[in-house]
Amino acid sequence: MEARNADLADRIKSRIGEFPDFPKKGVSFKDINGLLASNGIFHEAIKELADKIPEKPDFIAGIESRGFIIGIALALEIGVGFVPIRKAGKLPGELISEKYNLEYGTATIELQKNAMPKGSKVVIADDLLATGGTSKAAYNLILKQGSFPICFAFIIQLTNLNGEKRLPIPVFSIAKY
Amino acid sequence: MEARNADLADRIKSRIGEFPDFPKKGVSFKDINGLLASNGIFHEAIKELADKIPEKPDFIAGIESRGFIIGIALALEIGVGFVPIRKAGKLPGELISEKYNLEYGTATIELQKNAMPKGSKVVIADDLLATGGTSKAAYNLILKQGSFPICFAFIIQLTNLNGEKRLPIPVFSIAKY
Repeated sequence: MEARNADLADRIKSRIGEFPDFPKKGVSFKDINGLLASNGIFHEAIKELADKIPEKPDFIAGIESRGFIIGIALALEIGVGFVPIRKAGKLPGELISEKYNLEYGTATIELQKNAMPKGSKVVIADDLLATGGTSKAAYNLILKQGSFPICFAFIIQLTNLNGEKRLPIPVFSIAKY
Repeated sequence: MEARNADLADRIKSRIGEFPDFPKKGVSFKDINGLLASNGIFHEAIKELADKIPEKPDFIAGIESRGFIIGIALALEIGVGFVPIRKAGKLPGELISEKYNLEYGTATIELQKNAMPKGSKVVIADDLLATGGTSKAAYNLILKQGSFPICFAFIIQLTNLNGEKRLPIPVFSIAKY
């Protein structure tokens, strides 16, 4: 099992591109597009993530926009509904918002008030965990809606940025750097 | 078969919300989030779309950002890779761009030059076909990359806007208005 996981992580990493100084100087961008283009390896990664989730949730929430890809794939794999968390101004209807700090300035994410029944158990999905700012905001947003985040699921985790320590629920990821 | 399809279309429509004057006055926004939250019906819709595609493609391309959801779901269902078409400035590496006209102003979409091998057969996926402006731009973008769009796949088609007539390849959709 350990060996299989290590092998899968290596195959996934071989499909992840690195682009220094994108989208800005000093950031080395991890590009999952090569992984998405390989249906077989991406599907294996999603199955592995689904296996790690200890309890069946009611919904998977995905954070715009790469989190939509991971989130819906995970939702279809587990057989539960998907809920989008979007940047401000994109969702119609009654909304719940959460503002959070970026390195420079602030950002706001939103969720539809009636996205799911209150009290739902939710897994929050995204492609990558870095410092955890957006993830923490998504966690707060789901609590505000009246539901319960039970864990996070990422393809990539940048362990040196310690995002996991900012998050009050378990974090699962496939490719650690 | 006809009856089953009609029944599925009705169940899908019952899950699609309508928001008048969103995102701007005069537009009635069709919201697929209720459909996504219902794993069973969404998965049926994706299977039905997959069945309509006459030839197995090499890749599904999804248009940012709701097209990511439809596209990756279709790619996993058919068992092929996924390629994202994004708004300008979001993708790293060498890119191909296509500029197109909006009602007011212009927009640009991009694709990575090495997103897939040249000559690939591609299905273009999005949530909704309206006037077809973005869809046509996505079609041009894939031709520029050296690959071949073979058809479009949408959940929703607004037939009165005649988008299908602007598109030079077949259009498949599940819920027609």
